[in-house]
This record gives sequence, C-alpha cells and structure tokens, in this order.
Amino acid sequence: MADPIFFNNYGPFSLEEIARIADCEIYSHPSKTSNKQEPILIEGVAPLESATSSDLTFLSNPKYLKVLAKSKAGACILERKYIAMAPSDMAILISDNSYKSYALAATAFYPSTSFIEYLAPSAKIDKTAIIGTNCYVDEMAIIGPNVIIGDNCRIGASTVIERGVIIGSNCNIGPLVSISHTIAGSNILIHPGVRIGQDGFGFATDRGRHIKVPQLGRVIIGDNVEIGANTCIDRGSGHDTVIGDNCMIDNLVQIGHNAQLGKGCIIVAQVGIAGSSKIGDYTVLGGQVGVAGHLTVGSQVQVAAQSGITYDIADKMVVGGTPAVPIKDWHRQTIILKKLVKNKKGTNDEQ
Amino acid sequence: MADPIFFNNYGPFSLEEIARIADCEIYSHPSKTSNKQEPILIEGVAPLESATSSDLTFLSNPKYLKVLAKSKAGACILERKYIAMAPSDMAILISDNSYKSYALAATAFYPSTSFIEYLAPSAKIDKTAIIGTNCYVDEMAIIGPNVIIGDNCRIGASTVIERGVIIGSNCNIGPLVSISHTIAGSNILIHPGVRIGQDGFGFATDRGRHIKVPQLGRVIIGDNVEIGANTCIDRGSGHDTVIGDNCMIDNLVQIGHNAQLGKGCIIVAQVGIAGSSKIGDYTVLGGQVGVAGHLTVGSQVQVAAQSGITYDIADKMVVGGTPAVPIKDWHRQTIILKKLVKNKKGTNDEQ
Amino acid sequence: MADPIFFNNYGPFSLEEIARIADCEIYSHPSKTSNKQEPILIEGVAPLESATSSDLTFLSNPKYLKVLAKSKAGACILERKYIAMAPSDMAILISDNSYKSYALAATAFYPSTSFIEYLAPSAKIDKTAIIGTNCYVDEMAIIGPNVIIGDNCRIGASTVIERGVIIGSNCNIGPLVSISHTIAGSNILIHPGVRIGQDGFGFATDRGRHIKVPQLGRVIIGDNVEIGANTCIDRGSGHDTVIGDNCMIDNLVQIGHNAQLGKGCIIVAQVGIAGSSKIGDYTVLGGQVGVAGHLTVGSQVQVAAQSGITYDIADKMVVGGTPAVPIKDWHRQTIILKKLVKNKKGTNDEQ
Repeated sequence: MADPIFFNNYGPFSLEEIARIADCEIYSHPSKTSNKQEPILIEGVAPLESATSSDLTFLSNPKYLKVLAKSKAGACILERKYIAMAPSDMAILISDNSYKSYALAATAFYPSTSFIEYLAPSAKIDKTAIIGTNCYVDEMAIIGPNVIIGDNCRIGASTVIERGVIIGSNCNIGPLVSISHTIAGSNILIHPGVRIGQDGFGFATDRGRHIKVPQLGRVIIGDNVEIGANTCIDRGSGHDTVIGDNCMIDNLVQIGHNAQLGKGCIIVAQVGIAGSSKIGDYTVLGGQVGVAGHLTVGSQVQVAAQSGITYDIADKMVVGGTPAVPIKDWHRQTIILKKLVKNKKGTNDEQ
Repeated sequence: MADPIFFNNYGPFSLEEIARIADCEIYSHPSKTSNKQEPILIEGVAPLESATSSDLTFLSNPKYLKVLAKSKAGACILERKYIAMAPSDMAILISDNSYKSYALAATAFYPSTSFIEYLAPSAKIDKTAIIGTNCYVDEMAIIGPNVIIGDNCRIGASTVIERGVIIGSNCNIGPLVSISHTIAGSNILIHPGVRIGQDGFGFATDRGRHIKVPQLGRVIIGDNVEIGANTCIDRGSGHDTVIGDNCMIDNLVQIGHNAQLGKGCIIVAQVGIAGSSKIGDYTVLGGQVGVAGHLTVGSQVQVAAQSGITYDIADKMVVGGTPAVPIKDWHRQTIILKKLVKNKKGTNDEQ
Repeated sequence: MADPIFFNNYGPFSLEEIARIADCEIYSHPSKTSNKQEPILIEGVAPLESATSSDLTFLSNPKYLKVLAKSKAGACILERKYIAMAPSDMAILISDNSYKSYALAATAFYPSTSFIEYLAPSAKIDKTAIIGTNCYVDEMAIIGPNVIIGDNCRIGASTVIERGVIIGSNCNIGPLVSISHTIAGSNILIHPGVRIGQDGFGFATDRGRHIKVPQLGRVIIGDNVEIGANTCIDRGSGHDTVIGDNCMIDNLVQIGHNAQLGKGCIIVAQVGIAGSSKIGDYTVLGGQVGVAGHLTVGSQVQVAAQSGITYDIADKMVVGGTPAVPIKDWHRQTIILKKLVKNKKGTNDEQ
C-alpha cells in the first residue's frame, strides 16, 4: 500500500467495485466455491513483489511473470492468457489492457487532485488577474497582470506566471515553474521547474557579433498535456510553438521555437527538438533523441532512443541511429560492425 | 502582428524609417509609379505565412521561397537575388543580411527592455547590496550581501543572487534563476531557471568513498552573453569557469568546472562541456554535443549535433560523429555502413 | 588563493598541520638544511598555474607535469614518483592519493558548512514540521506539513519541501529546489534547481488517449549523496526510486521512476536512466549516457560517455557505443570504420 505519509487513500473498494471502475471481468476460479470470493475488500494497490492479501496489483510486462507466481497480492489485474500463471488463491480481474485498468483502479484509491479552495496570503496575485473558482494558489506564487486561470486549478509554490498567460480548467502546475507568452488548454499537468514561453534561440550573426532577433510568437498548448520536470518549451519567433492535445512530455526535454507537436505524441526524457520542426500525431521519440531544425517528422513515427533525425521522416516509419535509418537497417549496421570486429580479431590484423 | 496581450508595439514606422533602422535599400519596382510606394506605413512584423498588408516580413532561409511567393505581407526584407520571387505588389527592402536586418527592424517595433525603476517590496535585498539606477527587481527576488548590480538591470521574480556576485549594466535576468560566485559583464540575458556558480563535480575517491573537493573558483562571464533556460554553469575548482564575450548558449546546456569558452561561441541546446576543457572563439557546438574533459577545441570549429569530442580539435575543423572525425569522413562512414547493409540484404546472408 | 569575496579562509596552517590533516608525508629535500623548511606557513590553496609562495597546490593528473615544473606554489601535494619534477624550492607533501589529500587540506582552509542557526522570517514553515537544531532556513523557503529535518541542515532560498518529506542531519540543500515524497539520509548535498519526488512518466495508452497511472512510490536517498543542479529524480510508481549511499550525481541527470542506484555510483552530467533499471555498486556512467528501462547494470561497471545501454551489463564490464559493446570492441569498430573510409578514398569509389 502506498505510504500514508504521502498519499491519501480513498479505499477500500470491493472487487466488484474495482471491476466496474477498471473495466475488468472477475475471473471465477473453477475449483472454488462462489462464497470464497465474495467478501474480498481491497484496501490499496501495490507492486507484485510487495503487495499483501489486502492489496490489488497488476501484471502488464510479461518479463515479470515469475514475480506474479510468487506474489502475495489479494487480487491482480491481468490479461486472460496469464491466468494460469497466477497463484491459485489470488483473485483475478481480467482486462484486455491491464495497465489501463490498473491506472483506473489506482486513481480511484489515490485521486490526484484533492485540494480545497485557497489563495495563499503570501502569493502575489495581480489585481487584474482572473482566477477561476475552487483554485489553490500555493505560497509565494506570483501571478502577473491580465493572467486568466480557469476553475479547479492548482498553482504550485513559488511558481511565476507572467503577464497575459491564459490557462484552462483542471490544471495542476507544480512549484517553481515559470510560464510566459502562453495560451494553454485544460487538464494540463506541469511538473516542477518547467520553463514555458521564454525566448527562442534566435539571432543573426554580423561580423562575429550575434544580434538578437526578438521572439514574437507564443506557446499554444492543447488539452490533456503532461510536461515533465525542468523541461523547456521556448515560445515561437513569429509563428507559435504548438503542443497538441494529449501529448506526454517527460523531464529535461528541450522544445525549440516554432516547433509543433501533433496530438498524442510521447516525448521521452532529454529529447531535443530544434526550432521550426513539425512532429505529426501519436509519434514517439525515445530518450535523448535529437531532431534537427526545419524538419517534418510524420505521424505514428517511432524513433529509438539516442537517435538523431537529420531529414524528414514519413508517417509510420520506425527508425534508429544517427543519422537515423529504418530500424532494421540500423540493427543490421550494428550486426555488421560486430562481425567486422570479430573477423579482425581472428586475423590478428589489429594495430 | 505579434499578440498585443504579450508584446507592446512601438510602431508604426514608414518604409523609409525601417530601411534606415534595418540597414536596407528600398527596391523600386520598375513597373510602378513612384507615388505608389510612398504612403506605406508598417504596423508590425510577422512571418511570411501570416503577415498582412500592414506587416513587415523577411526571407532568410531559401527553403521558404515558395511561401514568399504566396505571402500577403506589405513589405519584405530579402537578398537582392530573391526579388523576382516576391509578389509584385509587395514592398521590398534589400539587405545583404536579411536576418540581421529583420532583427533590427523587429527590435524597433518590440524593444526587449522596457521597464520602469521598481524594487518590489516583497524582494529581499540585503542592506549591503548595491543596486544601480533604473533597475527593476521583481517580486520575491533575493539579493544577498555585498552583491553589486549595475544600471538598467531587471532581476526576475524569485531569482536568488548570492553573496558577493557582481553583475554589470543592462542585464536582464529571468525568474527563478540562481547565481553565486560569479562576476558578470554587461548586456547579459539570462533565461529562467539558469544555475550559475554552484559546485563543480569534483571529488577524490578513497576506498569506495567519494571525498568532496572544495570548489574554490568562480564563474567569469563577459559582455553580450545569452544563457538559455535551465542551463547550468558550475564554478571553477580553483581556476575560474569563463564564458567569453558574445557567447550564445541555448537551453539545458551543462558547462563543467574550469571550462573556458572564447568569444562569440554558439552552444546549442543540451550540449555538455566537461570540466577543464577550453573552447576557442566563434566555435559552434550543435545540439546534444558532448566534449570530454581537459581538451582543447580550437576557434571557428563546427561540431555536428550529437557528436562526441574525445580529443583536441584544431582551429576551423568541421567534425561529426562519436568519436568525432572530419565531417566528410563521418558522412563517408554513414554511406559505407548503408552500402554494407544493402549488400548484405542482397546476399541473404543475414542471421 | 580563493577570492575572499566568495570564500571564508580558515587558515593559515603550518606544513606540519597540513601534513596531518591531509594524511601526507613531508618530503625532506636532501640538498637543504632542515631549518629551511620549518617556518613555512600556508595561507591558502590555488591551482599550479596561479599559486604563489604562500599557497598550497597539488598535482593529480600527470598531464599537468609541465605546469608543475613552472609553478610558484609554496607547497605541493603529489605522489612520490613526481618529486623530481617539482621546482627545487617548493615544499613537497607526499601522498598516495594526492587528490584526496588536497581535498582534505582544502576543506580545512574552506570548510563548506559554516552557518549560524537562523529561520528566515520570510520562510513559510508549517507548524507541524519539525526542524532540528542549528539549522539555517533561508529566505522564502517553504516547508510543508509533517516534514522532518535533522540537525545542522541548510535549506536554500525559495526551496520547496512538500508534505511528509524526511531529511537527515548535516544536509545542505541549495536554493530553488523542490522535494516531495522523499525520505533522505544524512550528509546530503543538493544543488540548486534539483527536482526530487515528482511523478514518474507512467501512463497507459487506450485508443490514442494516454491515461495517467498514479505514481504511488517514493524516493529513498542514502547517506553522503551529492545531487547536481537541475537534476531530476522521479518517485517510484509503486516501488521506490532508490539512490544508494555515497552516490555522486552531476547536473541535468534524469533518473526515472523505480530506478535503483547501488552504493558509490558516479553519474556524470546529462545521463538518463529510464524507469525500473537497476545499477549496482560503484558503477560509473559517463556524460550523456542513456540506460533503457527495466535493465540490470552490474557493479563496478564503467560506461563511456554518450553510450546507450540496451541490455543487461555484467559486473566489472567496461563498455562503450550505442548499443554498448565491450570497450575494446567499440574502439575496434571506430578503427575499422576509419580504415574503410581510408580505403574508399584510395579507390575513388565514392558515390
């Protein structure tokens, strides 16, 4: 069960309640009497290894099937094909998407947004700012002139929201964030230390002196977006920088001026997207990937971690390496290099 | 035109005023009567795609020539050779460096530093600190003992400037920045979340225990430097860490203790420069480049994005790859690997 | 000598005192009378190049032997084998681990933690928080409900410590740090802008919509840990994220949810460790290394900078490249590629 020092538990729930919340089917153990399963009350959620008889757990990655076999969990969400691998005294909830079902169940036990309306006296809220109902503005937060914030938002401690920024409803902004020149939608989660809306990296060079180009665009963020800790999103230089609906952005990501992300992209930690590049919908960039400037990466593209994108990538391509090539070719490159090394060792022809 | 919620417009300007400010020549359309061009008044700036008949735009990257042809902009800054590609009813300003000229014009419309003298009552300014005239110290900023700040500086909200730091004039420091152990010049722009002057990564290892080495140097920053959001510059261990005049540093860059950058370097996002390495003048490091420790990289060197520098690089070299080699050799490596993969596929000799 | 604006000097010390503090042997110059060496009083420490006759310096990296020969330092810590390279009028302190000895001596001159008990009136300390004795809580720091902080701790300006966090004794936490969901040991040094305990990057995807998975674990940090500026450590999703005793973590590092570091690991700047990966004891990850998720990297492993770890690595392996291979094989790969390029140039068989 999650540490009660840090997490408020809204359980317990019966197995039936969880099945309904998490879109699961309760598995009837053929060898058991029906009354055996009825009284199960689940008090919390926990991983396979540490779950107790009052906890719900889940199996998503088959790498952990051996751990399932030894788990003490009272109940487990898993796919139908894994039922036989579970201990026989474990209650089973069958789901086609066990990770999604776990997400729904865990959210019932530990809902993320539970705060009461509060504007900390130490916060500095400009008198022209408009704050919606049921918002929580934490200590030392600074909200500038003409800012508009929707309902049910949390603004973290010492976060700075500058002049004119617009934020929708049900947004959760962590502490020590800075936001300027931004229009953002609803249901957005912004983690600590995020930087949004600062100048892009734009300058003209004239005889060794770099002359700053005013950055006159904005950042436009859709709905249901998550932005990881210490990630930076520069505002556009004239166009806007755009983050589409349902994008998930991890920590320490760099998004340059005028970059555009479509819907539902997954951008893993430490990715860098250079200025004016466009990414389609549902594209996944692995950790530490770099995308050069002024490129078009299509929709449903998958890029292996640490790859470097140096030209346009068509829809649905799966690529890897620097410069990135189709993933199978990249794997072949690494195999060929290994063979060349092996042959070389055989011939004693090393330097 | 830039969004008036976020940007104060100091226009309009006549075409003649812009030509003078931006160092351009007004092109006389041969097919037009002279009275046609006289009354043009430009109200703002905008990109090629979105500019209207009252906007100034520019063409710098020839990739966008097709967009120029369809642009509705009232006026455009471009090089002489592209005149014929512009719509015939567009006023043309000819420049040898159209991006520089645009920078100058856009700065006239939207000057970056426009604030009035103000020391926020919520700021904590030590009584031994010296703040110049016409400075703006934003809410909750903290300025420690014996800090000296020049004239016309802006210190962002909740920024922390520790004991003894010296900052020149006309500096613009964003919110939530921390600076210690630093002596900085004038005309410096520091974006949100920058970390300057903290300990370098120095320790001696003794039977598995890492013993901290006191970091007793400083950070010395020249004039006209820009430092991107969430970038970290560690102070020296005994020597100083040095950033030369006119350096442009992007977001999320790591600069280790004792590193030295010459004049006018361009350091793109997520670059890492390890401790005690020296970079010459006007060198460009592409995004995510890594430079190992105790190396010398010359002047006017160009390093392709994601490359890894593991030995000294002579002046004016252009290099790429990890470990970095001359850029042509790096391109040849990638071509050879592609050919080897292609041949392998032909022979069905794959594993 | 370190700049007195930034560093308080607790010297001078006699050579004998330094020898005792730094675990060194005083070398007796055979050509000198004993009374020559007695009166030496050292006032500070400085690098080889800038040290004066009243400074102590050290030689650790033999790359700098030529600099030693010209140094004006009054005294130098070095290994026995380098004695002959030092100027004959320089006092010599012999050490088997000169860098460690320097660390000890420099710490005597410039001890890191010297503050007096102080709770800034502008700090917001929840009435249920427990702060130990002799702590320094700087301006605008925010300490939430039920936080427990040990003795002799410094909490930096505008740092935010959220509900329930536990921190041991003798910890030094810089400004603008955020910490939540964390239990940390003693003697910990956390640099500015560090983010600890925020949500991991966990979500289930259901028909293009990403559903957040509640992140219900914690961050557990051992003793004697250092964490660099703007580094991010996400809390676990159900398991805990664990940082073992004596780990040294540099700037801008990303540590994903459920990751586990053993004892004494060295994690250089901009490394990314994906979720649920386990690193053993005394393992070194070079700058910008990436470790994929759900992997096991053994103990005393060394990974070259920028490498990508995509499968489990056994104890004591030294690896490099992406995907990482044994370091010798990686060097062979780069040599083979260079030779192939050279041969190609010879035959004029380029594209």
